Parts: sequence; structure tokens; C-alpha cells
Amino acid sequence: MQQHVYKSVEITGSSDKSVEEAVQAAISRASETLHNLRWFEVTDVRGQIDEGQVNYWQVTVKLGLTLD
Amino acid sequence: MQQHVYKSVEITGSSDKSVEEAVQAAISRASETLHNLRWFEVTDVRGQIDEGQVNYWQVTVKLGLTLD
Amino acid sequence: MQQHVYKSVEITGSSDKSVEEAVQAAISRASETLHNLRWFEVTDVRGQIDEGQVNYWQVTVKLGLTLD
Amino acid sequence: MQQHVYKSVEITGSSDKSVEEAVQAAISRASETLHNLRWFEVTDVRGQIDEGQVNYWQVTVKLGLTLD
Amino acid sequence: MQQHVYKSVEITGSSDKSVEEAVQAAISRASETLHNLRWFEVTDVRGQIDEGQVNYWQVTVKLGLTLD
Amino acid sequence: MQQHVYKSVEITGSSDKSVEEAVQAAISRASETLHNLRWFEVTDVRGQIDEGQVNYWQVTVKLGLTLD
Amino acid sequence: MQQHVYKSVEITGSSDKSVEEAVQAAISRASETLHNLRWFEVTDVRGQIDEGQVNYWQVTVKLGLTLD
Amino acid sequence: MQQHVYKSVEITGSSDKSVEEAVQAAISRASETLHNLRWFEVTDVRGQIDEGQVNYWQVTVKLGLTLD
Amino acid sequence: MQQHVYKSVEITGSSDKSVEEAVQAAISRASETLHNLRWFEVTDVRGQIDEGQVNYWQVTVKLGLTLD
Amino acid sequence: MQQHVYKSVEITGSSDKSVEEAVQAAISRASETLHNLRWFEVTDVRGQIDEGQVNYWQVTVKLGLTLD
Amino acid sequence: MQQHVYKSVEITGSSDKSVEEAVQAAISRASETLHNLRWFEVTDVRGQIDEGQVNYWQVTVKLGLTLD
Amino acid sequence: MQQHVYKSVEITGSSDKSVEEAVQAAISRASETLHNLRWFEVTDVRGQIDEGQVNYWQVTVKLGLTLD
Repeated sequence: MQQHVYKSVEITGSSDKSVEEAVQAAISRASETLHNLRWFEVTDVRGQIDEGQVNYWQVTVKLGLTLD
Repeated sequence: MQQHVYKSVEITGSSDKSVEEAVQAAISRASETLHNLRWFEVTDVRGQIDEGQVNYWQVTVKLGLTLD
Repeated sequence: MQQHVYKSVEITGSSDKSVEEAVQAAISRASETLHNLRWFEVTDVRGQIDEGQVNYWQVTVKLGLTLD
Repeated sequence: MQQHVYKSVEITGSSDKSVEEAVQAAISRASETLHNLRWFEVTDVRGQIDEGQVNYWQVTVKLGLTLD
Repeated sequence: MQQHVYKSVEITGSSDKSVEEAVQAAISRASETLHNLRWFEVTDVRGQIDEGQVNYWQVTVKLGLTLD
Repeated sequence: MQQHVYKSVEITGSSDKSVEEAVQAAISRASETLHNLRWFEVTDVRGQIDEGQVNYWQVTVKLGLTLD
Repeated sequence: MQQHVYKSVEITGSSDKSVEEAVQAAISRASETLHNLRWFEVTDVRGQIDEGQVNYWQVTVKLGLTLD
Repeated sequence: MQQHVYKSVEITGSSDKSVEEAVQAAISRASETLHNLRWFEVTDVRGQIDEGQVNYWQVTVKLGLTLD
Repeated sequence: MQQHVYKSVEITGSSDKSVEEAVQAAISRASETLHNLRWFEVTDVRGQIDEGQVNYWQVTVKLGLTLD
Repeated sequence: MQQHVYKSVEITGSSDKSVEEAVQAAISRASETLHNLRWFEVTDVRGQIDEGQVNYWQVTVKLGLTLD
Repeated sequence: MQQHVYKSVEITGSSDKSVEEAVQAAISRASETLHNLRWFEVTDVRGQIDEGQVNYWQVTVKLGLTLD
Repeated sequence: MQQHVYKSVEITGSSDKSVEEAVQAAISRASETLHNLRWFEVTDVRGQIDEGQVNYWQVTVKLGLTLD
């Protein structure tokens, strides 16, 4: 991180494939309204089960964006 | 939770009666500007004391709302 | 606690009224199959929101039962 | 909190009715010997079970009092 | 989550490929004896190393199942 | 740990002598009904006091057993 | 805290001098768009190093503002 | 625990022999001035090293005493 | 730490200048009634904001004192 | 784990593809100088964002190696 | 602790007898290559089970050594 | 952070003036033998008290260095 002021927001994305795709889904949706997204940190990995199979993944990320 | 993208916000509500009423106060105020509130998680229960009595309760909740 | 061997199980109960009622719901259901329940510890307080109102409370408890 | 020096003490109160009443029991007992109690924070919610019913609640609070 | 009573169990699955496959292994084995599995939460990601390569992944999940 | 599926259970044992003996008491009791116990992790060390002396130790362990 | 509804936001400020100055930088930037900032809590203290010297401090604060 | 009001205090005891003896040292010293000590919880286990040997153990316990 | 019995107390001090001065304020006030203070550990750094400026710092410390 | 003495080191690896590849990158680099690496535990999953896309993953692992 | 610069390392020792002996095993092995070991802190207590008996204890300690 | 492999080490520095100076002391000592130090994270702030005054500060930092 460079010498900026950052704001953090918490977003949960989902995917029926992988943790990585769920994180990207969260970032893609957030970047529609938030500019200057710089970093993320995974804070929670959950999911739904249907008939003994992972139905989809739900991954919560803290996203950091520069304010200046 | 269904397969959505969620955003979380942190709100503190208060009540002179109960934990439950303080949570509802936080949700009521948040729902004035935030739509699609779906779930909450209590993260902190505090309060103020006046002359040996609970004066009011202050309960912090993380609120989840759908972005799509 | 007296000098016993204890087992802990984690149960989530729900109620549309209060934290207390959700805890009792968890204990009532658990006591149908588990005997000798002795103590509980609240580990999570969450809930669902519908149109700006708490729809119901979901409270997770760790329940301790004696094995001997 | 105003610009004071505070001391914190940890007290556990109990009640057969509710979390709120157990917190008040802790504060009432503490205020017999401690003056200037200002705030509390709930740190633990436990209880005893008797025949599948919550027998009583035990709630631990950190109490803050002004020293000056 | 709907208004049910849930039980949580903790299972560790393993895979030589990925975190996702290790989670599915845990769920598949648990669903042989536990019905109504609904959700999971990843609580630990570990693994074994052999000659500088990840030998296999070991992922611990908390699994939630409906009791009613 | 080898490449198995594990289940974890939480048991509290007690002893008037030592932490080690309380852990063994928890394992001995659990092994009456659970086979294939492989590892343990101490998660809590508590105890009861009587007239200024440790009356007995209560140690909580998470026990891991292979399911396959 | 008085009997209000509060919202919390997470901001990271930086300074090449001190923790205190980095916190003030976060608050100053946040107060350009957020009114009624009332309290802060430091949640993370990090920084960058250049040739064996602290280059700048990065301090994350949770900021509380009144909504009413 | 029965239906009492409890106070908790934090004490660190030491011993050159064992964890158990350090806990007893903390309780013995505390019971000189505090009556009605009922339970303890170990919160920290540390120690000093001298020439590659444990010199002494320092164990911190939270002690619970009845106030009524 | 040498081989003593220690007691810990939790005090919050404040300062309009710095974290360091708030810690010293807590220690100075505590040492009016508590002798043999030996060490401290910072457990919380908060503060109040007034018109976009840090109004004062509130720092909570755990203070250790020898009992013997 | 067998009856050895282990040392733990903390390494962060990165990958533009996946969590798994970032872990392997950390292990591969560490095994250039450290022999007898046996196990890992993921302690942090972060990453960098560039124009609304995950640029690369940064995964921190604790690595265990036998000393004997 | 005196006014030194310290480094911390994390070591796991084992013993088939006790927690104390496992800690000493970790310290003894570390002191073969590290001089000036001064203190330790227990961070994890685990172990292996064989046929319903504790086979051996595995205790992880953070060791502090002076660098100057 | 750029796309490197990092190693983290834990160092405690001290100062009789401030948190900032204690962090710099830790970094200065570490940089005598470790090159490529890039970032730090404060994990513990403690200190020693002498006659009601802070005698010196002891601040523990996790230091990140690039391995490549």
C-alpha cells in the first residue's frame, strides 16, 4: 500500500465453482459503483449444500479503496 | 442466503428496554436509506448506567443487504 | 459444574420474539434425544429481516451434557 | 465517555427470566460498593438447564466506573 | 436459513487437488449418515508437504443440518 | 494426519490431580463409544476451588476420530 | 455515547510521523463527506519500511457517526 | 455455578515445578484476602528460561468469587 | 517478570495529546491507591472526535502489580 | 505429526491464478533453504485488485519443519 | 523483560509424560542453536491418541531471545 | 505489496519515549542482519512501570521481508 487514505467495505460474492470465482464476483459487483479498488482480504468462506453436494460458495471479502 | 452479492454495514441501535428493541431500532433506521436488508448478526452488546440502573442498551449489528 | 465428563454439542434455535425464546427452542429440541443437558453458552446471535423488521432470531448455543 | 480515568471490573449476574434482568442484577449488586458506575459491556452469556428448560441465565459484564 | 432448529458438526476432508475438493469430500462422507445438510463454514485450511510439494489439503468445515 | 476424513467432538474431563489426568479422563470416557480416536487439542482449562485449594481440574478437549 | 443510532465505517490513514497523525489523517479525510463523526477505535497499526527506517505509518480506525 | 452474583479477578502465580502448582500459588495468595473463591480459568501460560532450562512457570488465572 | 504473585487491573486513561500520555494518565491515577505497579499492556485504543478533530484519546491498559 | 521437535515459519506466496498455487509458491521458495518441511496452515488470504479484477492472490502460510 | 530487543520463534516439543516435559523438550532443542533464550509462552496444546490413551503431548511455545 | 514471496519475523523493540521509537528500534536491529524489510504490523504494546511512571515501552512487530 502506498501513502493514501483507504476505505474498507465488506462484500459477499458467490459462485457454484470455486472460492476464487466467488471473490471475483464480489469485486466485479463492487467495482460497478466503487472506483479505485486496490486490495481484498478474505474474512469468511461459507456455502450452501444441496443433496450432499456443494451448491454454491459464499465468500466474504473486505475491499480496500483509495479515497484520494 | 441465496446466490446473491451482499454488502454488510455496521449499525448501533439503542433502547431503554431490551436487546431486541435496540436491534430493531438499528434496523428501522438503516431501512430508511438501505433497501433489501436480509439478515443481521449481533457483534456487541453494551449500555449506559445511571444511578445503579441500566439507562439504555446499545447493540451493534452487522446488517446484510442484497446488491443485485 | 461437578466432577463429571461432559460432551458439548452446538445447536441453533429460532424465535420470532426474543433471544431467550430462541435459546429455549434449541434446548427443547435437543432434549428430545439428549438427556442430562446441564448448561449452555450463547456463541452467536443472528436473525432474518423482512421489510425492515426482525423476522426471527437465530441463536446458536453450545450445550453441555453429562456422559456418566 | 468523557475525559475521565475509568476502572473496569467483571461481574456475573443471574436471572431466571432474561439476559436483561441478569445484567441488572450484576449492576445492582456492584453498585452497593462501587460508586460512579457508567457503562457496561456484555462479555459472556451462559446458563443452567434443568429438565430441558433454562433454569437461569448467567450474564457476565465488564463494568466501567469513573475513578476521579 | 429458514426458521428451523439446526445442529452443527465439525468434519475435516482431504484432497490432493484443491480446497474445494477437500470440502466436498467432507460433505460427501458426512452425508452418508447425516441427512438434511444445509450449509457449511470453512474453519481451518491445512495440509501435508512432501519433498517441497503440497501432498494433500485438509480442510475443516462446520456443517449445519436441520433437526426437524 | 494422514489423508482421511475426520470428525471432531468436544469433551470435558476432570481430575483432582492434573491437567494431564483430566485430558486422559475425557479420552477414556469418549473411547467407550467412539473408535478410531487419533488426536486431541486442549481448548479450555478450568477448575473448582474449595477453601483456597484446587478441588478438581476441568479440561475441555476437541477429539479427532477417523470416519473411514 | 448518548442514545443515538450510529453507523461505523472503516478508514485507514497514513503519516510519516506518528500513529496519532495517521489517525487524524483518516478522520480529516472522512469528515469531508461524513458529518457527525463522534468516536474512533484503532483496529490495526501497520507501516512501510524503507532502508531500515519506518517510511510511513498506516493506521486503521473504525469511525462512529450519528445517523439521526 | 449456582444462582449467585460473581466477581472475577485476574491473578498470576508462579512455580518452578508445574502449571498446576503455579495455579495453586495464585489461588493460595488470593484466598488470603478474598473469600468465597469458587472457580478458576487458565488464561495464559508463560515462563522464564535460564540456560536452556525452564526456570519457573507463570500461569494467569481468572478467579471467580461469590459476592453474596 | 520475577517469581512473584501478580494481580492485574484494567484502567482507561485519557489525553488530548497522545497514546503515550493517556497510558501515563491511567498509571498515575492507579498508583495513587495501588503500590508495586510493575508492567502494563495496552488492550484498547479509542477516542472522541469533535468537528473532524481528535478531541481526546482513551487508552485502556491492563496493569500488573506484585501482591507479595 | 510424529514425536518430533518442530519449528514454524511464516511465509507469504502469491499467484495470479488461485489460492492453491500461491500456497505452493510459498512452499517451493521456502524449500530452497529449509529442509524437512512437513505441514502448512493457511493463516491469511489477501490479494491485489487491478481495474475490477483480481490481479494476484497473496496467501500466508505457517510452515512446520522437523528439527531433528 | 529488561530494555532489550527480542526475537520470537515458534517451536513445538513433545513428550509422552506431561505438558511441562514437552515444553522443556522444545526449549532444549532450540537452545542447541539459539542463545539467550529468556521466556516462553504456550500457544497450543495438542497430542496423539493410541487405543484410548494419550500417546504423546505436543506443545507449541513462542520463545523469546535477546538479540543484543 | 507486489507479487513477491515474503517471510515474516517477530521482533520486540523498546524505548523510554514512545511507541514509534520502540518500533524503529526493532526495525533498526533487525535490519542489521535482514535485508529487504518491507512492512511491519504492530501486534503487542506493553511496557515496564517504575514508581508510577512508564519506565520504557516494549512494542512487538511482525516484520515482512522479500525472499526473492
